[in-house]
Amino acid sequence: MTDAFSFAVSATDGEARRGTIATPRGEIRTPAFMPVGTAGTVKAMLPEQVRQAGADIVLGNTYHLMLRPGAERVARLGGLHRMMNWERPILTDSGGFQVMSLSGLRKIDERGVTFQSHIDGSRHELSPERSIEIQGLLGSDIQMQLDECVKLPCSDEIAEKAMHLSLRWAERCRVAFGEQPGRAMFGIVQGGAVERLRVESARELTRLDLKGYAIGGLAVGEPQAVMLSMIEAVMPHLPAAKPRYLMGVGTPDDIVEAVRRGVDMFDCVMPTRAGRHGQAYTRYGRLNLRNAVHADDPRPLDPASACPAANTYSRAYLHHLVRAGEILGMVLLTWANIWYYQDLMAGLRKAIEEGRLSDHIASVKADWIRGAPPGPRASCRSEAADGDAILALSDGTVRRGI
Amino acid sequence: MTDAFSFAVSATDGEARRGTIATPRGEIRTPAFMPVGTAGTVKAMLPEQVRQAGADIVLGNTYHLMLRPGAERVARLGGLHRMMNWERPILTDSGGFQVMSLSGLRKIDERGVTFQSHIDGSRHELSPERSIEIQGLLGSDIQMQLDECVKLPCSDEIAEKAMHLSLRWAERCRVAFGEQPGRAMFGIVQGGAVERLRVESARELTRLDLKGYAIGGLAVGEPQAVMLSMIEAVMPHLPAAKPRYLMGVGTPDDIVEAVRRGVDMFDCVMPTRAGRHGQAYTRYGRLNLRNAVHADDPRPLDPASACPAANTYSRAYLHHLVRAGEILGMVLLTWANIWYYQDLMAGLRKAIEEGRLSDHIASVKADWIRGAPPGPRASCRSEAADGDAILALSDGTVRRGI
Repeated sequence: MTDAFSFAVSATDGEARRGTIATPRGEIRTPAFMPVGTAGTVKAMLPEQVRQAGADIVLGNTYHLMLRPGAERVARLGGLHRMMNWERPILTDSGGFQVMSLSGLRKIDERGVTFQSHIDGSRHELSPERSIEIQGLLGSDIQMQLDECVKLPCSDEIAEKAMHLSLRWAERCRVAFGEQPGRAMFGIVQGGAVERLRVESARELTRLDLKGYAIGGLAVGEPQAVMLSMIEAVMPHLPAAKPRYLMGVGTPDDIVEAVRRGVDMFDCVMPTRAGRHGQAYTRYGRLNLRNAVHADDPRPLDPASACPAANTYSRAYLHHLVRAGEILGMVLLTWANIWYYQDLMAGLRKAIEEGRLSDHIASVKADWIRGAPPGPRASCRSEAADGDAILALSDGTVRRGI
Repeated sequence: MTDAFSFAVSATDGEARRGTIATPRGEIRTPAFMPVGTAGTVKAMLPEQVRQAGADIVLGNTYHLMLRPGAERVARLGGLHRMMNWERPILTDSGGFQVMSLSGLRKIDERGVTFQSHIDGSRHELSPERSIEIQGLLGSDIQMQLDECVKLPCSDEIAEKAMHLSLRWAERCRVAFGEQPGRAMFGIVQGGAVERLRVESARELTRLDLKGYAIGGLAVGEPQAVMLSMIEAVMPHLPAAKPRYLMGVGTPDDIVEAVRRGVDMFDCVMPTRAGRHGQAYTRYGRLNLRNAVHADDPRPLDPASACPAANTYSRAYLHHLVRAGEILGMVLLTWANIWYYQDLMAGLRKAIEEGRLSDHIASVKADWIRGAPPGPRASCRSEAADGDAILALSDGTVRRGI
């Protein structure tokens, strides 16, 4: 255990890095995937199930928690860790992204953003300072700057304006955050799909000497190739000694390609949301357990998995639970999916340590293809007000739902 | 472990009995409460959570399982135990009760009952022989005869006709069941709220020399006093050496009063359904976690409980989860409720062993009253097609929902 927040890279393989973030609440092995605990719960999971799956850190959503149960109330209850019974590190986003995608009647200006709650229509303000204050009340270990995230595609002018506003907000967040031993505040690179803007954003942010840097505003509708080229453009301009976090990403394929390009941290609702909608991620690709083809299949999802949900219950039983709308079906598939994502990360970490990342990724992808033909690639940074995912498919189209 | 099905009483206290049912799949400590696993899952629970709570046996619903996933399919998957990953004993009902309460366009005659599925409108037949066949396909350890369960109040003529039909069906079920080493078939006492009919039913059933006897058709709308007087009327006519099962009961108060009168086994959806609707059963009565009074309450449900759901999470957090519609709220409250019911049974068993049942019950009731003023008494043998409970309140009225 440590009193300070630190990051150390212990191995590299090409651009990819194997590292460790040390915090007073525990270590985060990178590359890391953070399950999303939107409203103070990784949906359908007990915290011990999340830990058992291998997660070192979970994400909390400032937007959801400030509206319900309220940041001051969480603080009175001893903070988010104690409230949700998760004593390991928590990263919180700034709330900005969900304000843009979920709330009503929002108005953005230099000071911040005012908006209406999607729950009860009440009016709220979120400034860079208030976002940091809320994240402090929650007790977050890694706090994110407030940023403006534009929808893609958009004009260069809009992307540039939002990027500059985000830079000014980053500076205000840094001042508001001050010195918090053991905790970190990360900046967020913006700039839409414009390489020049992304590079400028990364360079200017780096001047602030923050504890870590995120890439935001990707996986919001653009093809994977655009996302990857933005990552490639930004990476050389971020300091090698700081963790790099690709926000809201993504599919297993997105993740391995981003790890290959030097990204250290990820979060996405995909494994949890898919689990609540009858979808299983496995070594052999994604399965839709609702399909009749599974109705009599006695095989578990993956006998080689260490996850009880993946190695114990038959596909036929999971199919039955999904068809019957049983909560246990959501629990088991969510658990299996979180576990699969953590296994994926563990495999990537080991491959980097052993200097065989490219071979490993090729083998992982061969398994996906051999097992079950993959459906369209989907990313899920976006979330509609009704809780559906906004999916960006590999052919460039956007679709609602998983 | 044993190859045979047996029952032994090890202690008595007044009419109450402390016993053990031995089966090849494990022992059942009586008085026992069986959590209900309607469609092959105790709703929202992993099987290990049910076991951890202290349950020796769960109940499966023939009606639900025959419609989905289908009895023959369950058999192909190795039986219900293997399918749902519960290797301990399972009791299945006959399907008759749910046919009467859930299905559409049902027609009952001497041969059996034909009905339309509430899921897809498909037509099905259930005879005494088919019910036993289905329960055998499921692999049930304790199988129930098909019976006709009338709604209360009803005329004596209707109650008598249904009781006699149930007796004839009991005989056919006994023949169909034959000899199944290690398994048992129980008969069901009917007769509405008419003492004379209940006594006749018990006497005639006893002639069949079955492995156990249930009391059916109670807690379907009548006041608790009527239910208890029917139990008192029937008990002297059931053989002391066989287990006695009060079907579909009930509230904690119903259970302690029935145990006091010599009942050995219970089942009810109340703890699981209540858990999905924000209600917690505790030593200090029932709490509605949806109420604003819990919003800032840092106390757990019961710090003295061994259940992680009851001793770890604050009421404020549970309130938040319930308000936000989070699955984890349903999981935690279901777990706490099942655990509470099992603790209640363990306390009753210990008190019988030690010859202090009356004092124990008085102390249990004092805790309920001291803690939180009890709401109207509710029993839950009934279930509406939409999944709501049909509640019989202590003032004699009937209400939908928990």
